[in-house]
Amino acid sequence: MSSLDVFFNPKSVAVVGATPKPGKVGRVIFENFKNKFKGKLIAVNPKYKDVLGVPSYPTLKDIPEDVDLGVIVIPAPSVPKVVRDAAEKGVKGLIIISGGFSETGEAGRKLEEEIKKIIKEHNIRVIGPNCLGVYDAYSGVDTFFLPEERMRRPPKGAIAIISQSGAFAATLLDWAAPRGIGIGKAVSYGNKIDVDDIELMRYFEKDPTVKAILIYIEGLKKGQGLKFVEAAREVIKSKPILILKGGKTKRGVEAAASHTAALAGTYELYKAAFRQAGIIEASGFEDLFDMAKALTTQPPAQGNRVLVLTDAGGMGVMATDALENLGLEVPELSNKIKSQLRERLPPHCIIRNPVDLTGDATDDRYKIVLDATLSSDEIDIALVIAQMQVPTLSEKVIDYICEATKYGKPIVVCMAGSEFTEEIAKKMEAINIPVYSSPERAAKAIWALYKYGMYKTRV
Amino acid sequence: MSSLDVFFNPKSVAVVGATPKPGKVGRVIFENFKNKFKGKLIAVNPKYKDVLGVPSYPTLKDIPEDVDLGVIVIPAPSVPKVVRDAAEKGVKGLIIISGGFSETGEAGRKLEEEIKKIIKEHNIRVIGPNCLGVYDAYSGVDTFFLPEERMRRPPKGAIAIISQSGAFAATLLDWAAPRGIGIGKAVSYGNKIDVDDIELMRYFEKDPTVKAILIYIEGLKKGQGLKFVEAAREVIKSKPILILKGGKTKRGVEAAASHTAALAGTYELYKAAFRQAGIIEASGFEDLFDMAKALTTQPPAQGNRVLVLTDAGGMGVMATDALENLGLEVPELSNKIKSQLRERLPPHCIIRNPVDLTGDATDDRYKIVLDATLSSDEIDIALVIAQMQVPTLSEKVIDYICEATKYGKPIVVCMAGSEFTEEIAKKMEAINIPVYSSPERAAKAIWALYKYGMYKTRV
Repeated sequence: MSSLDVFFNPKSVAVVGATPKPGKVGRVIFENFKNKFKGKLIAVNPKYKDVLGVPSYPTLKDIPEDVDLGVIVIPAPSVPKVVRDAAEKGVKGLIIISGGFSETGEAGRKLEEEIKKIIKEHNIRVIGPNCLGVYDAYSGVDTFFLPEERMRRPPKGAIAIISQSGAFAATLLDWAAPRGIGIGKAVSYGNKIDVDDIELMRYFEKDPTVKAILIYIEGLKKGQGLKFVEAAREVIKSKPILILKGGKTKRGVEAAASHTAALAGTYELYKAAFRQAGIIEASGFEDLFDMAKALTTQPPAQGNRVLVLTDAGGMGVMATDALENLGLEVPELSNKIKSQLRERLPPHCIIRNPVDLTGDATDDRYKIVLDATLSSDEIDIALVIAQMQVPTLSEKVIDYICEATKYGKPIVVCMAGSEFTEEIAKKMEAINIPVYSSPERAAKAIWALYKYGMYKTRV
Repeated sequence: MSSLDVFFNPKSVAVVGATPKPGKVGRVIFENFKNKFKGKLIAVNPKYKDVLGVPSYPTLKDIPEDVDLGVIVIPAPSVPKVVRDAAEKGVKGLIIISGGFSETGEAGRKLEEEIKKIIKEHNIRVIGPNCLGVYDAYSGVDTFFLPEERMRRPPKGAIAIISQSGAFAATLLDWAAPRGIGIGKAVSYGNKIDVDDIELMRYFEKDPTVKAILIYIEGLKKGQGLKFVEAAREVIKSKPILILKGGKTKRGVEAAASHTAALAGTYELYKAAFRQAGIIEASGFEDLFDMAKALTTQPPAQGNRVLVLTDAGGMGVMATDALENLGLEVPELSNKIKSQLRERLPPHCIIRNPVDLTGDATDDRYKIVLDATLSSDEIDIALVIAQMQVPTLSEKVIDYICEATKYGKPIVVCMAGSEFTEEIAKKMEAINIPVYSSPERAAKAIWALYKYGMYKTRV
């Protein structure tokens, strides 16, 4: 049992500041819980006897039942009193959504100090203040105060998100939803007076539903660097960590300082730390999800030798460029494999690496090449380009690609087009074959599989 | 009048090898013309009296009417004879789709030489052989032999495509279609025994429907480098050229050599030539379209000073990083503008660059900042981030952003999310405001606007 369980799987939740008033943060959060939370829900608001049909109490102390988790959405100056009530009531965890603390100046900082003292004394765990809090697709905990019509919730899935920016966490969830990207848990921790990135990372390490941890960070607190690296090195033994760092350039660092008061520091230092920790760095949020898709569906690569298999020459060239630019190899095939292929493929196919099946490619040509190469010890990963504009290709290609996963080596697919192509891509992703719309994105996913494989071996 | 007009706007077209047989190249092309071509259509096939209800003749010479353009889809060995017929008939242009020429070896090379001789003698213009030919959304010329159900045709638009790879041109059209990217013309020139990239570039320069020229190239013919650079320098005076180069790395160059027998040469040489020519280089095809979208809707930038305006701090930080990494400036605002903004914005807004309107941003705050900054001489371009998850923002923000284009400076928008966001994005794009789903992509579009502005000034 971890003391963080209370945030993700509480038996009972009290929302302090719950209100029936439309548009209010206390209403959105309360409705989220009412619609999805599987445990006991209680309102705390002295103005009401009930909120949306749920009993409401004047204070936490008035609640007859036990309260595991308190969610606080009242103005900052009133928060310390509620924290004291929580201590008396025996509440185990608090998510303090309210802003108006250290991020606003000296008065706010003092309020924060007051809260810190109480929670330390009474052993209460806190996420926040000044945050969006916790989203858990499994238990229905959802303190993200943006209504569904503005911020859709994604399907359940293997990704966990830790974000120093609340708005960015909201963007990630909303963006992922229509794209079918599965996210199980997300945390925006705001001013992190108690629970921080490091502890969350370790918590998700133990969570069997999580297969990849995605972090947005602008800066660590002073003196946390080494601790962060050490924690990450442990975590990546069992699951990959992907990071997107905000504040890499001079002006970016300055912007981060006004945004989260982060010690964004020199990016070079962070970069070195990530590398040392075995954390995979993303260049943007699309890239973050692209890499996560590969890492949650394919095994890490045992080496950097990539087969490029294509039915479109130009795409094969572009894939080769992208792979080589990322430090991956597209090695020439041995004469043994080449002659195997020459025997079984039509003479106009180009048998090298990339293998070009040309514009009259048939499904079985894919099978022939994948079998010959992935069963050998010459190739560690396959990048399969299947341009479905080629009329001789059918859905059968999906089965052949899926079958080839039996060799235990990662396979990444690239296909770009309109509805016909996208239908095929969807079917492949449903059976855990990651598909990308450009050779460059597919190459980056392969890079992540290679990096993770190397990092894992190292630690 | 250009001798290339015959390929894009012929009065009459004869398809040599037209057939009613389903699935055949001669059927797909003939049907394309039958469905969309606005001029006179004629079939040439000795086996039929008519093809799909259109009269068919044994040879080109048997056709009673004048023929402007011949499209050839018969086996390579029979092509020289047809070219001779075309010469006798007075056909002005030929698109030779058929493969089996120099790309297959010595015998094919000889056939190609024979054709070259005839067309030179009789002044016939040729696109191909071994190509997909021409797609013109306006006239209905469409020799791309992939059926609609596999390769959708995009809406009419301001982009013209020139591609050394046929399959890649097909991918671009199919990919663009469901995304509403407007493409007017596309050419796959194959072995380019006559018409080449340079001539096409110059042709599109004069075409008033074309606002940006997109090129995929693996290599130029020997000795063509200087001519290419000189032509491009002329073209970019009136419209931007965007290029995607295949074959940049050692293995990529080798792959290109087997694909198009291109002299892919040293990428550094190409890169220098592109820079000298004022051609903007793309890193992939999504990037190619991203930049084209900005260049076909916004004026080029007169400098590199970018305002970042956001309602989401983290996105502002990421945008700043991306811009600075691309060599653009995110300058501090003057005290004059800052105090103007301080007077008119709520105190919790962060007034620097990025300007952070924060999570309770309203539409009119966008107007206030855009007016104050774009009317000044401190800023050349605006990157506007409007995360629509913020419930206080409405569609009104579209009007304010659109209004701000009156300052004559380019504006690029970034918003990421699900349906609600995408609906707003679509409405903005309908009125020619380019929208991108990530700060990095928006920054790259801004880079293109800046580059084009600088190149234009230089030549």
